[in-house]
Amino acid sequence: MINPVLVEVTRGGIVESRHAGACAVVGPRGDLIASAGDIDRPVFPRSAIKAFQCLPAVEAGVVEAYGMSDEEIALACASHNGEPDHVRVARSGLAKAGVSEQAYECGIQWPDPGEVSRAMARAGEQAGQVHNNCSGKHAFMLAFAARLGVDLKGYVKRDHPVQQAIEKLIGEMCDYDLASTPCGIDGCSVPTWAVPLRNIALGFQRFGSGEGLSEGRAEASRRIIAAVRAHPFMVAGSKRFCTDLMTAVPRAFVKTGAEGVFCATIAHAGIGIALKCNDGASRAAEVTLAAVMSALDCWTDEERALLAGMSRVAVNNRNGIETGEIRAVQRQWKCSS
Amino acid sequence: MINPVLVEVTRGGIVESRHAGACAVVGPRGDLIASAGDIDRPVFPRSAIKAFQCLPAVEAGVVEAYGMSDEEIALACASHNGEPDHVRVARSGLAKAGVSEQAYECGIQWPDPGEVSRAMARAGEQAGQVHNNCSGKHAFMLAFAARLGVDLKGYVKRDHPVQQAIEKLIGEMCDYDLASTPCGIDGCSVPTWAVPLRNIALGFQRFGSGEGLSEGRAEASRRIIAAVRAHPFMVAGSKRFCTDLMTAVPRAFVKTGAEGVFCATIAHAGIGIALKCNDGASRAAEVTLAAVMSALDCWTDEERALLAGMSRVAVNNRNGIETGEIRAVQRQWKCSS
Repeated sequence: MINPVLVEVTRGGIVESRHAGACAVVGPRGDLIASAGDIDRPVFPRSAIKAFQCLPAVEAGVVEAYGMSDEEIALACASHNGEPDHVRVARSGLAKAGVSEQAYECGIQWPDPGEVSRAMARAGEQAGQVHNNCSGKHAFMLAFAARLGVDLKGYVKRDHPVQQAIEKLIGEMCDYDLASTPCGIDGCSVPTWAVPLRNIALGFQRFGSGEGLSEGRAEASRRIIAAVRAHPFMVAGSKRFCTDLMTAVPRAFVKTGAEGVFCATIAHAGIGIALKCNDGASRAAEVTLAAVMSALDCWTDEERALLAGMSRVAVNNRNGIETGEIRAVQRQWKCSS
Repeated sequence: MINPVLVEVTRGGIVESRHAGACAVVGPRGDLIASAGDIDRPVFPRSAIKAFQCLPAVEAGVVEAYGMSDEEIALACASHNGEPDHVRVARSGLAKAGVSEQAYECGIQWPDPGEVSRAMARAGEQAGQVHNNCSGKHAFMLAFAARLGVDLKGYVKRDHPVQQAIEKLIGEMCDYDLASTPCGIDGCSVPTWAVPLRNIALGFQRFGSGEGLSEGRAEASRRIIAAVRAHPFMVAGSKRFCTDLMTAVPRAFVKTGAEGVFCATIAHAGIGIALKCNDGASRAAEVTLAAVMSALDCWTDEERALLAGMSRVAVNNRNGIETGEIRAVQRQWKCSS
């Protein structure tokens, strides 16, 4: 199946670039309520399922054992900017678990927003692993390993108990056999398993609704969603789509992943969403997510207008002149929630 | 026409992302010698035709009038990194023309490679317009305006004599009527006209071969190509595809443009190339260009091997682990030069 064009980028009154992709929307009872393109081909969800990588730790009592705060839980679900508040929270979570920064195996990363890195450089600072956009997730993985009483070293490897617990949980949430699907290595060195968008959306439907989950897992899911809702800044940061969307529409839980992936759950409506752009473009995944969410009938008029507004974004050049826009293509999302 | 997939990005042994696009290769006498996808839809060439934006100034004697060096000519064709050598050369070119940095209308840009910006921040420096990746091109536009004796102010506007000369030249080089094609505003605020890839490739065929050009224009073209060949660092910079390719294969002239465009001329073979990825991805445009160039029969075995080597690139994560690759899809480029 050829995936449809979902996004157009315009300039000078014409379409300059196009992004194709696929999207699955799953509603109550696991029913597919809308889709576009090939949702049955396995794709790597990458960082879009950080909540599922955090869930086994929360389910196993890491939050209570170490007194983790909502900020620290939210940062565990983050691809953050490495801003000072993100770094502070990553460090406090590690400290509570009694783990040193040297235990990190995510790799060093200078914060992506240039102004954050330049401020560090001006202050004579160097980037460390704690600045890696995944440092909150890795803090929880390390805390989980400490809680399990297993060796911290190698916690990013597929055969480590932490990753094995994550593999089991993702397979259960998404109702998909991870043992026989391709497994890649993510940017921060943890495994990432290829899962069809239909199944990832099912996982997020269950995550938001609690349907089909044990009481402990449903409770852990609610805890994570509440923490992110309370601290949307922790999940991304300044001028970031995830933070902006969840600040504007707190009833949504959304998360970006590398290579054009986006996942979401709308807990109050029991809906899960997963999408990927063929070419890996974040700019296209963002406006597509906003468009498909705004098409659902589970919002107030105000929420719907906010989401629709995020489905087209003006592009300005270095002199502030508007040169075009990035816009989701109008389409009939067959949606009934 | 649906453009074919030209590039695959792999992870964990499967294809994670795909890039589609179109490409035109024009040979002696303007014959199309290879193509893929829709090469007749007008696309914005963006910065890939900086050589054509520099050409009217060289043709009009700006080089001789102000004693411009080969470095300064090469920088006029550049989307540079804003490294210290680039900034030095932009400033020297402006100074020779007696133009102040305040005359720039390209906008302020912090250098894109983070390490360059961080070094500036450490030294207490601020980004200016001279750090804009287009500052060399704009230095030549300003020098051209000075040479013409016209007002510098507004030199980026479509109705300014500098841009009118560029519009006329691009139309002639590409044998395409710019008056009736969409015109957009580029990132640095100058006009960009939409031209089919077939015609852009024809323009680069003429640029490299001199075919069909006046003696003055052919001479100016040779001057530009020689300057870039002598200073490939000026055209892009450290760890950049354009610089790396032209350093490895000096008989090639290649130039990237925003939104997945690449243009090239192979002067010794009289060949012009223009390509664009649908989705605007540079990573895909780069490996596609290397692949189509390596398929031509105008190279030594060593040159061909170097180009083929650049048609697939390993992807490493933040711990230096190879997670996959970006590779041009194997295809039969119907090439005979």
